[in-house]
Amino acid sequence: MKYTHKVQYYETDKMGITHHSNYIRWMEESRVDLLAKIGLPYSEMERLGIGSPVVGLDIKYKAPSTFEDVIEIETTVTEYTGIRLRFAYSMKNAETGAVVVEANSSHCFVSDGKVVALGKAFPEIHKKMTAAVKAQAESSK
Amino acid sequence: MKYTHKVQYYETDKMGITHHSNYIRWMEESRVDLLAKIGLPYSEMERLGIGSPVVGLDIKYKAPSTFEDVIEIETTVTEYTGIRLRFAYSMKNAETGAVVVEANSSHCFVSDGKVVALGKAFPEIHKKMTAAVKAQAESSK
Amino acid sequence: MKYTHKVQYYETDKMGITHHSNYIRWMEESRVDLLAKIGLPYSEMERLGIGSPVVGLDIKYKAPSTFEDVIEIETTVTEYTGIRLRFAYSMKNAETGAVVVEANSSHCFVSDGKVVALGKAFPEIHKKMTAAVKAQAESSK
Amino acid sequence: MKYTHKVQYYETDKMGITHHSNYIRWMEESRVDLLAKIGLPYSEMERLGIGSPVVGLDIKYKAPSTFEDVIEIETTVTEYTGIRLRFAYSMKNAETGAVVVEANSSHCFVSDGKVVALGKAFPEIHKKMTAAVKAQAESSK
Repeated sequence: MKYTHKVQYYETDKMGITHHSNYIRWMEESRVDLLAKIGLPYSEMERLGIGSPVVGLDIKYKAPSTFEDVIEIETTVTEYTGIRLRFAYSMKNAETGAVVVEANSSHCFVSDGKVVALGKAFPEIHKKMTAAVKAQAESSK
Repeated sequence: MKYTHKVQYYETDKMGITHHSNYIRWMEESRVDLLAKIGLPYSEMERLGIGSPVVGLDIKYKAPSTFEDVIEIETTVTEYTGIRLRFAYSMKNAETGAVVVEANSSHCFVSDGKVVALGKAFPEIHKKMTAAVKAQAESSK
Repeated sequence: MKYTHKVQYYETDKMGITHHSNYIRWMEESRVDLLAKIGLPYSEMERLGIGSPVVGLDIKYKAPSTFEDVIEIETTVTEYTGIRLRFAYSMKNAETGAVVVEANSSHCFVSDGKVVALGKAFPEIHKKMTAAVKAQAESSK
Repeated sequence: MKYTHKVQYYETDKMGITHHSNYIRWMEESRVDLLAKIGLPYSEMERLGIGSPVVGLDIKYKAPSTFEDVIEIETTVTEYTGIRLRFAYSMKNAETGAVVVEANSSHCFVSDGKVVALGKAFPEIHKKMTAAVKAQAESSK
């Protein structure tokens, strides 16, 4: 799924480039966008009492970006087990095509402060997520 | 009340100076610090169900600051009516003494999503706040 | 000039609403967007050695916003003297139409670390800015 | 090297906990602090024309933290080759002792926009860094 972010002035630092912490925020933006597009808006999951906190991430900074650059973020669900959800992100400069960042994030699901398995706790959501991940895999063949 | 903030690298922008939005965050840091020192930690107020959102602020940027500068923030309660709370902030560079920012913020009180008068809704907190504001006024004479 | 910002998860705070410091960042986003649309992209001004730091701002928070809200920001140049530039901002919730924020910011111009008058230091830019401000005034009659 | 960060209100999100992107910023805070303590303040390196951008990082979120928590960050140089610099970070809640985050970051060195080997380009800095890393290894035996 493609998502676009334009680098803002307040996202740069005194090195003249995007501060590295912002890419983690754009990962969230694009992940939230993907979930909405597959019919599982994060706000709706929260209304049902489901949270999906980040449990880990890794990121490789390949090239800098800066103010007014348009960043294209390709986000993919790489794993969904009902307990764990993983995304991969590839960010490139929309104008030059240069790869800027490669990253991954993993998430669990929580409800009422406890880790839950979506299949048991929220079977409807689990079904939607499973179908969406399958559809994504098909379309990328 | 004095509070100190050291400018972080991630708070700078490509102009090489502190991004102007960060001073609004330091106002919050120093206000939270003041409230804790007068015996009304914000976290405790939240546990009682009281929020104190910002309803307005104004800020004058007098001089820039940058990475590794130490900023001294003098914060004063300038008005407390039970319904409205106002703070004034004066920030200076600790090394040079140069005034960096002069600002004000005003706040109301909310509970269960509604604006409340502390005197009626939370008389104990109101008493503490009134006494603290009085003590501050005495000490600054 | 209209600009749209969608509230991100990372822009919320534990009160469940947009943290008040973010509106200052969206003011920058919409101001940068306006300058680009009138033919004076901020990045180009910087390449010419012109900076336009914020010297003051005031903001009234009228209503909260939160995650996934779409905020419509109407930005207007309210003053341009060659030395001083002022903007007014009116932000509303795109879905409900509720006014969220009313704000103003004022800016000077700097070059080589000194405050400059655009009319003298950069007459071409000054001409463009004057024409753009005039056109804006005409169109809003 | 130990560094302490107190979680600010503006660092929380609507889940009621610290937004995960902030830990990346605290890694920078503690790394900058460590460099200053071993006699290589980052601001001085920048004055010499040396930058040290992040090229990669990984982070495991073990437990949440929230507003007013004090986070103790233990930072260690785990590798220094003159070309690559790596840090490990262990963050815990100062009150409860609970491990909050485990992370690593790796950095290169740049000067005039190009990647450089400190040993060749800046032998004095290289000597200091090598000695500091050695001293750290001795003290932790």
